[in-house]
Amino acid sequence: MRIAVGLEYCGAGFCGWQSQPQGCGVQDALEAAVAAIAGDRTVVTAAGRTDTGVHAAFQVAHFDVSVERPLSAWVRGVNSHLPAGVAVLWAREVGEDFHARFAATQRGYRYVLLNHPVRPALNHGLVGWHHRPLDADAMNRAALHLIGRHDFSAFRAAECQAKSPVKELRRAHVERRGDYLLCDFQADGFLHHMVRNLMGSLIQVGAGVRPPEWMAELRASRDRTRAAPTFDAAGLYLTHIRYPAHFALPEGSDRWPFAT
Amino acid sequence: MRIAVGLEYCGAGFCGWQSQPQGCGVQDALEAAVAAIAGDRTVVTAAGRTDTGVHAAFQVAHFDVSVERPLSAWVRGVNSHLPAGVAVLWAREVGEDFHARFAATQRGYRYVLLNHPVRPALNHGLVGWHHRPLDADAMNRAALHLIGRHDFSAFRAAECQAKSPVKELRRAHVERRGDYLLCDFQADGFLHHMVRNLMGSLIQVGAGVRPPEWMAELRASRDRTRAAPTFDAAGLYLTHIRYPAHFALPEGSDRWPFAT
Repeated sequence: MRIAVGLEYCGAGFCGWQSQPQGCGVQDALEAAVAAIAGDRTVVTAAGRTDTGVHAAFQVAHFDVSVERPLSAWVRGVNSHLPAGVAVLWAREVGEDFHARFAATQRGYRYVLLNHPVRPALNHGLVGWHHRPLDADAMNRAALHLIGRHDFSAFRAAECQAKSPVKELRRAHVERRGDYLLCDFQADGFLHHMVRNLMGSLIQVGAGVRPPEWMAELRASRDRTRAAPTFDAAGLYLTHIRYPAHFALPEGSDRWPFAT
Repeated sequence: MRIAVGLEYCGAGFCGWQSQPQGCGVQDALEAAVAAIAGDRTVVTAAGRTDTGVHAAFQVAHFDVSVERPLSAWVRGVNSHLPAGVAVLWAREVGEDFHARFAATQRGYRYVLLNHPVRPALNHGLVGWHHRPLDADAMNRAALHLIGRHDFSAFRAAECQAKSPVKELRRAHVERRGDYLLCDFQADGFLHHMVRNLMGSLIQVGAGVRPPEWMAELRASRDRTRAAPTFDAAGLYLTHIRYPAHFALPEGSDRWPFAT
């Protein structure tokens, strides 16, 4: 039987999603908790393999079990075995045609950036930070140059294992909310470090160092060395995963502070 | 020369405001950082001595120094010596008639409560939690019974060192915002554990265990044993400090996620 679960986690306490020999991945924590309920070792597969320090307001994963348990066992039972920084939000039984990673048709990230002279303290590790005033409108105009099906090599980490650098970016939007900038990106998939690399360059535009059109040039150049350095992981949240409608799964969560 | 500073801190990394022999108080961190800039040991006094795990979206403190420094040294300089969980938001020179604790005429707290079947994960330690649906309107009606100048002994911790249990509660308001309840309290001062004790009893009303009028009975009884247990520190934020207008100091901060 295949079970799909919705997850929420704080990236600060983990070395990313992926299982590690030291056991510090979110995957390690979840596999141990699922095994405690399933009574057997279980491999868990996620929609997006988030990096160290990257958070999930919403992540979807699946695993196969041979035991019959009420769905609540995969929520409340598993949660009782998980550390404080990660929780299962819901569980659904799905068909074997469901695969958390390969069946996903769209993923969404939100970058939360504190734009204030003083670094974050109350929510340190949970938001990115830029100390000088940023022009959110200019950043939003720059972001529009990214939308569409493009080769995003200029924003791809050297270690990226994706087969192709071509992704379809369907939404790229920057909006100011008080002292915060909320930066949204939705695509069929993302390259390694792609959102953090986009953020680095968008901030150059927001700071007035480059015009919005520079983003189009950068993208067209496909040259990683021309774009800005990878920005801090702290403000990055995986927020949406979309699957074909017949799976009837939730696409996001609105129980985190920067959901709307 | 007396300097007043505005502070923000995450209570999770400290054993409360007050200086401790082990050095784990926010006061210890701030005194060490100020001493690094002042070149001399400095005692810092705060408006409100928050407990272990309680956060400050806004706290005011003062200290006396004999050295001349630009005000930016008390912000950027001090911040460079502070741990990630605490930051100085601003610094002002004030007269010797200013005292962070004794000159304050009003303090405000906001309790942030996640009301969702699943415990918090992304913001664990930063919000309180109740798993069953709460009636925010009933809680707000209950809170109205608290407003005014009253003896709040029913909500006072045994260890409370206040001279009198009488406080003037000027605002008590509960409001739902999606999966969160935002609970605001403003008074001339608060007794030890007062807001957390009020929250425990308000949640009983929200859960339908008690009617809103029970809050008036509890308060009138002045009997701590009749009220609910002290609620979790995690969702409690010091948010406002008011001083006489001639000091011209900011009263709060809007750079935290639950500010509005």
